[in-house]
Amino acid sequence: MRATVIHAPHDIRVQEVPDPVIQQPTDVVLRVLRACICGSDLWAYRGESARQPGQRIGHEFLGIVEEAGSEVNGFAVGDLVVAPFVWSDGTCAHCAEGLTTSCPQGGFWGSVGSDGGQGEAVRVPFADGTLVRLPAAAASDDHLLTALLALSDVLGTGHHAAVGAGVKRGSTVAVVGDGAVGLCGVMAAKRLGAERIIALGRHRVRTDIARDFGATDVVAERGDAAVEAVRELLGGEGAQAVIEAVGTEQSMRTAVGITRDGGSIGYVGVPHGSGTGLDLGIMFDRNIALRGGVAPVRTYIPELLPDVLSGTIDPSPVFDLTVGLDEVPAGYRAMDERTALKVLIKP
Amino acid sequence: MRATVIHAPHDIRVQEVPDPVIQQPTDVVLRVLRACICGSDLWAYRGESARQPGQRIGHEFLGIVEEAGSEVNGFAVGDLVVAPFVWSDGTCAHCAEGLTTSCPQGGFWGSVGSDGGQGEAVRVPFADGTLVRLPAAAASDDHLLTALLALSDVLGTGHHAAVGAGVKRGSTVAVVGDGAVGLCGVMAAKRLGAERIIALGRHRVRTDIARDFGATDVVAERGDAAVEAVRELLGGEGAQAVIEAVGTEQSMRTAVGITRDGGSIGYVGVPHGSGTGLDLGIMFDRNIALRGGVAPVRTYIPELLPDVLSGTIDPSPVFDLTVGLDEVPAGYRAMDERTALKVLIKP
Repeated sequence: MRATVIHAPHDIRVQEVPDPVIQQPTDVVLRVLRACICGSDLWAYRGESARQPGQRIGHEFLGIVEEAGSEVNGFAVGDLVVAPFVWSDGTCAHCAEGLTTSCPQGGFWGSVGSDGGQGEAVRVPFADGTLVRLPAAAASDDHLLTALLALSDVLGTGHHAAVGAGVKRGSTVAVVGDGAVGLCGVMAAKRLGAERIIALGRHRVRTDIARDFGATDVVAERGDAAVEAVRELLGGEGAQAVIEAVGTEQSMRTAVGITRDGGSIGYVGVPHGSGTGLDLGIMFDRNIALRGGVAPVRTYIPELLPDVLSGTIDPSPVFDLTVGLDEVPAGYRAMDERTALKVLIKP
Repeated sequence: MRATVIHAPHDIRVQEVPDPVIQQPTDVVLRVLRACICGSDLWAYRGESARQPGQRIGHEFLGIVEEAGSEVNGFAVGDLVVAPFVWSDGTCAHCAEGLTTSCPQGGFWGSVGSDGGQGEAVRVPFADGTLVRLPAAAASDDHLLTALLALSDVLGTGHHAAVGAGVKRGSTVAVVGDGAVGLCGVMAAKRLGAERIIALGRHRVRTDIARDFGATDVVAERGDAAVEAVRELLGGEGAQAVIEAVGTEQSMRTAVGITRDGGSIGYVGVPHGSGTGLDLGIMFDRNIALRGGVAPVRTYIPELLPDVLSGTIDPSPVFDLTVGLDEVPAGYRAMDERTALKVLIKP
């Protein structure tokens, strides 16, 4: 089959690789219908996250079960399924608690020896614990299929941030980060009943989506000026719930600055940089909580799926460029140069 | 009157100062019956927290109302009352939310221009918002009076840590810090229904109190060895709820190390050191939350007071040395040299 392989920073190629086969009786082989490129893939693309030459890449995909191992009970050949961005056994104590990302048998797509999502097919370990079935009819609904793809990462990650930030009915929320996850954080906050949602961003295309997803206010300023602008909107106070969807020291500093005393930061931006950006003295004096991390999206899919199927929420606008498999390298360039928000792949 | 004054690091004196008088109609003047020395006072004593020469010191006290301003409604001359370690107006939005430590009109005892608790009397601003009445009979019960004094800081702070750590019925808890706050954290965790409580400490006097307060296990190791020891006790995992009651980079690192994936650290140790001790990458991967800060003990007193009055909990063992006002400097030395756990002052 053909799949995306990362050879070195900025050297992403689509090439022939061995077809995936069932290796364990709990495996499924999936034919990929839709995949996409994640903001976190760019860290590997830019060489800021180490990869071994030849590793696969891509961790967001949905598709059709092509083959199922003898011990797979939940899925049959022909099923339409979505995969979360990590696999998990579904049976350990962490999976039972819903923290599937801490499953000792779990792993990331594209890690050494595993398939990535940006290819024609994927071997899925622990299929029963990992995959979630989608209605068969969705396979022929192009728009819905795109919306459902967001369940593999960005929608669940935005939801995780909103949960970590403690968003509830009537909350005032501020969102740091105008990427797909930040925008999904806006959508998740709105879905959880937030009354006021302030999106930080200055790119019109993105802030328009933010408003479409439920943002009531947009703040274009950055850094200290952003902190001032948010506080001015809120009568001098910060927001009770802050979503941090970037992961840099500066974004974390901004997040602390715009949080109301006693409030919470739900952070889902993969931390980058030598420091944390956290001034613990300030957080201590103001009782600001920090909750979040890598999102256990597998756990959230059953809760979010019905709302996507019914059209109550539609995250598909985060995909603003569609490419075929051969154009994946061009897709990385577009995201790296921020000419695309999030790239959809139709293999 | 006589009160404790800090002139320079290691230069603490008890001397004549002006008698406190009512300055605002919402003030009360309180005659101090019991006060004490806090671990955080030692930061000033050691010069690690800046103080202006001549500042008063001490923020934990209870006593008798000697004079009440014309707008004080809740208290009358002769009332026995306890003061939390910050004053607060009781009427602002933060006070209404229970975050009395963020009251814009609030302040710390011993800050420039205010009285400290380690003296014969204190002017209490915003008495109605700040003080809590105690049963008059307690004034003649020496043991109970000592237990009640813990409501001014350490018991409420330990409770704040337990709440921040998410302790609930059946929780497994680990406590970093064997000072009075850490020990009260053990007590608070037990009170909230924790099933297993692991106290980190190596001083027999302190670990005996920890066991008395509800610790089921004691770990004497430090640093990485402590992390290993806790995990060995818990079958390879960390504790769901971790109380951090020290505030150094090393203690924070230990706290992260002994937290179970998806668990929470309730931190109440005043942060010290140039860095945070937080490895945000580890916290992110393992979904470890950080909640806490300066404890709004005023808010907790009504919840904790009945249990102290009934004897259900008795924090008085954290006081292991009693001094008169003139011996306060000796009390600081004893705590600085760790020959005393917490010094009780009877002015």
